[in-house]
Amino acid sequence: MSAQKIGEGDYILLYLSQRKTYLIKVEAGKSFHTHKGFIKFDDLVGREYGSSVLSSLGIEFIALKPLLRDYIMKSVRKTQITYPKDIALIVVFSGIGPGSCVVEAGTGTGALTTALAHFVKPKGKVYSYEIREEFLKTAEKNLKRANLFDFVELKNKDVTIGIDESDVDAVILDLATPWLVVPNAYNALKSCGTIVSFSPTIDQVVKTVEALNENGFVDIESVECLMRGMQVERGKTRPQTLMTGHTGYVTFARKTAKP
Amino acid sequence: MSAQKIGEGDYILLYLSQRKTYLIKVEAGKSFHTHKGFIKFDDLVGREYGSSVLSSLGIEFIALKPLLRDYIMKSVRKTQITYPKDIALIVVFSGIGPGSCVVEAGTGTGALTTALAHFVKPKGKVYSYEIREEFLKTAEKNLKRANLFDFVELKNKDVTIGIDESDVDAVILDLATPWLVVPNAYNALKSCGTIVSFSPTIDQVVKTVEALNENGFVDIESVECLMRGMQVERGKTRPQTLMTGHTGYVTFARKTAKP
Amino acid sequence: MSAQKIGEGDYILLYLSQRKTYLIKVEAGKSFHTHKGFIKFDDLVGREYGSSVLSSLGIEFIALKPLLRDYIMKSVRKTQITYPKDIALIVVFSGIGPGSCVVEAGTGTGALTTALAHFVKPKGKVYSYEIREEFLKTAEKNLKRANLFDFVELKNKDVTIGIDESDVDAVILDLATPWLVVPNAYNALKSCGTIVSFSPTIDQVVKTVEALNENGFVDIESVECLMRGMQVERGKTRPQTLMTGHTGYVTFARKTAKP
Amino acid sequence: MSAQKIGEGDYILLYLSQRKTYLIKVEAGKSFHTHKGFIKFDDLVGREYGSSVLSSLGIEFIALKPLLRDYIMKSVRKTQITYPKDIALIVVFSGIGPGSCVVEAGTGTGALTTALAHFVKPKGKVYSYEIREEFLKTAEKNLKRANLFDFVELKNKDVTIGIDESDVDAVILDLATPWLVVPNAYNALKSCGTIVSFSPTIDQVVKTVEALNENGFVDIESVECLMRGMQVERGKTRPQTLMTGHTGYVTFARKTAKP
Repeated sequence: MSAQKIGEGDYILLYLSQRKTYLIKVEAGKSFHTHKGFIKFDDLVGREYGSSVLSSLGIEFIALKPLLRDYIMKSVRKTQITYPKDIALIVVFSGIGPGSCVVEAGTGTGALTTALAHFVKPKGKVYSYEIREEFLKTAEKNLKRANLFDFVELKNKDVTIGIDESDVDAVILDLATPWLVVPNAYNALKSCGTIVSFSPTIDQVVKTVEALNENGFVDIESVECLMRGMQVERGKTRPQTLMTGHTGYVTFARKTAKP
Repeated sequence: MSAQKIGEGDYILLYLSQRKTYLIKVEAGKSFHTHKGFIKFDDLVGREYGSSVLSSLGIEFIALKPLLRDYIMKSVRKTQITYPKDIALIVVFSGIGPGSCVVEAGTGTGALTTALAHFVKPKGKVYSYEIREEFLKTAEKNLKRANLFDFVELKNKDVTIGIDESDVDAVILDLATPWLVVPNAYNALKSCGTIVSFSPTIDQVVKTVEALNENGFVDIESVECLMRGMQVERGKTRPQTLMTGHTGYVTFARKTAKP
Repeated sequence: MSAQKIGEGDYILLYLSQRKTYLIKVEAGKSFHTHKGFIKFDDLVGREYGSSVLSSLGIEFIALKPLLRDYIMKSVRKTQITYPKDIALIVVFSGIGPGSCVVEAGTGTGALTTALAHFVKPKGKVYSYEIREEFLKTAEKNLKRANLFDFVELKNKDVTIGIDESDVDAVILDLATPWLVVPNAYNALKSCGTIVSFSPTIDQVVKTVEALNENGFVDIESVECLMRGMQVERGKTRPQTLMTGHTGYVTFARKTAKP
Repeated sequence: MSAQKIGEGDYILLYLSQRKTYLIKVEAGKSFHTHKGFIKFDDLVGREYGSSVLSSLGIEFIALKPLLRDYIMKSVRKTQITYPKDIALIVVFSGIGPGSCVVEAGTGTGALTTALAHFVKPKGKVYSYEIREEFLKTAEKNLKRANLFDFVELKNKDVTIGIDESDVDAVILDLATPWLVVPNAYNALKSCGTIVSFSPTIDQVVKTVEALNENGFVDIESVECLMRGMQVERGKTRPQTLMTGHTGYVTFARKTAKP
């Protein structure tokens, strides 16, 4: 099989170092400016992904093909995004996969939406609710850039009032009052469907767990996940000094049948 | 849409409590014995998933539909399995998704294989290498139970000697000497393909990161993930006393093009 | 200076391995039985601390001199003891030291009392309140064994009703309702005296912080401390699998002067 | 007993908020400038510790009496200081207390020295080794400010070459090559004396543990301690986002008698 080539209009992840990367669109005739000199896109078009290129100052950059995590981390954002470590837990705990039908709320700028769409494509669908219209525009932009907009339906509706879909595999919540959505989620889910909620505060977790207990859910579990980077160098290896101390708690539950 | 019914031959997750669940096959005319009495499978066939059933001692159980995480946690095992929290990170960091072509080594009893197959199906494929033949039999059993065997090719081969596949999207390693596989992984990967390695010890991480540096990989990152459960009860909420202190480090990198 | 000798009536820490130790009293003519054979105390009397001795089965034990941490961990207990990591934080955050005058509640079986007495001796004093009389007997036994009873006054009184002492340097709380003690603590403390409270649940922390805010305390801070052991062996070093996930939160504050 | 008054020449901790404090010396006739206006020292002299004072801009500050932790955190520093959480562990694990005789190396700018002196005073002594003369001047200044210089002997000597003292209770190491000090530490310690070493990297820990094993130490234990602050507010309580991910590992051991 032939190697993949960088084309006009493609998104690339321009890599300088593990801490310095840029998610940009390749535009013929143009160039991209950094503090280490500029890169001419014409030097990249037609070359293999993963190729290196020199900036005007002679600094080496590498043109990588963006991955899911890059689209998440580099999403145009207006809110705090959900972290990849939490998205990873949400996806695996929810049990969703290719072909799943998922309701999400709120969309925010679409970071979690991007991940959900990535894993349910091409036959699955994400119905994503958001009451703040301006966020939906940003989310649409982020999803289109990641080539995942076809698998998402963005809905400018209040999920606490109602969920249009039924028999869905999972309801994924990342909003301020997840407990208000629990009865609607029960109705929207198929038998044994899952609900996963992400919340920064303990009080949100307590209220959500209570609502789940009162609304026919079982196997309720709340966890938090701490991720710490390692500084790896022979003879000097150690955990990194800087670490995110908290993002939020992930609460998981499964729907039981009505008695 | 009609609710899903439990059928003869289906696997169910019989749920007593968050800590006590059983992954079992429904067999007409038989029953399943627990310390809380036995369950007759005939009481379950034809009922909706998520339904409750009483044991011979009058204790309520719920017949849930197994999720990916259940198949992972309940896999018949001979080795220590990779934890869902680590599997979650591996999947999301690797960038794989529906349709991806993945090389994995070693198979072990197939817990990680199960997750990879779940996310690349139906068009993708997992090529999983394992030198210990007895493990492959267990892995096959675990994969069949999870209905994912069609998306996996189990190979009784030594991945440090060679990888048959090429142009793969990701190479996922969970074996004692990942650094020995790095050159083969480079050759098997497509441009910008990813490698993800899971290792319990720091020395394994150091050797693997060195091999990645020397073999054309960039964006090398090693992390560990700590997951802690919360005991949620209004007025008494607190983190759980018991916690797994360490499973392993996840190391991630991307292939660059040959200069 | 001559080395310290083991004497009749002394307490020793009999050490088999990092995980297997015994805090016992040396009694002439008697012996101590373990699953690795028995030790005759007469083999120990008059020997240097740190000496090794063989059991009746030829297994080597070492007779160590007990340290503060040993007295804490081996305290005869009826309640969950406060962990050394938390005791360490409490002592250092409270600002106490030799000569300090400290009020503690509740005594429990005296683990924290032992540490406080150890650090304020010989001129300081710990006034320790406990409403459950049976605990005070155990605490007295534990304190006497550690040779620290002279620096403690055990009080069978309810600290939420009143504190007899005044102008104390610190009030240290490890009881179910610390917030109820805050006004009394304010009155008992000298200017800029400290209060430190240890509580397992988040609700206790919230109520205590509120009471501190309302009662003239500043610099209020709540932290939790996670300690993880390392398994150290060249080429195989890694964090330990088992870990205590939670003991409690430590809340600290300082008294301001009345306006 | 009368309340403590702020005097000319005293050090105070000027408190604006939990995150904004100043450790300063009270000098009659002078003032202290902050971004929230200046404070006249004459407004403070003769007042009770813990009193509030208004700045020239009408902002309230509180004049607190500095505690051990303040002297540690506000030490004039040229190196990274040891964190209070680690100092707490070191002190409690080492078993030292009032009257103990301790060897420390290296002094650095004296943060750990300050804590050790605080806990061994008034009869104990800290012998602190440091090869870099310029650090000793800073350490002296920091110790004098905390009123603890009388309990310390600063030594401009290389501890890897020799330790002058003998029969000491503990040897505390915070330097780049602790393993080189282990044989000297053995000779300097009394029977069952303790050694505690603080090191940021895993390789330092491995080498130190090996040296301890080879030089007559037992009960060897290495741990790391993670401290996370809580943001406490009714209805919004959560762990803090920012956290120090790593400072170092604390390794502990006890001397056995020569066979």
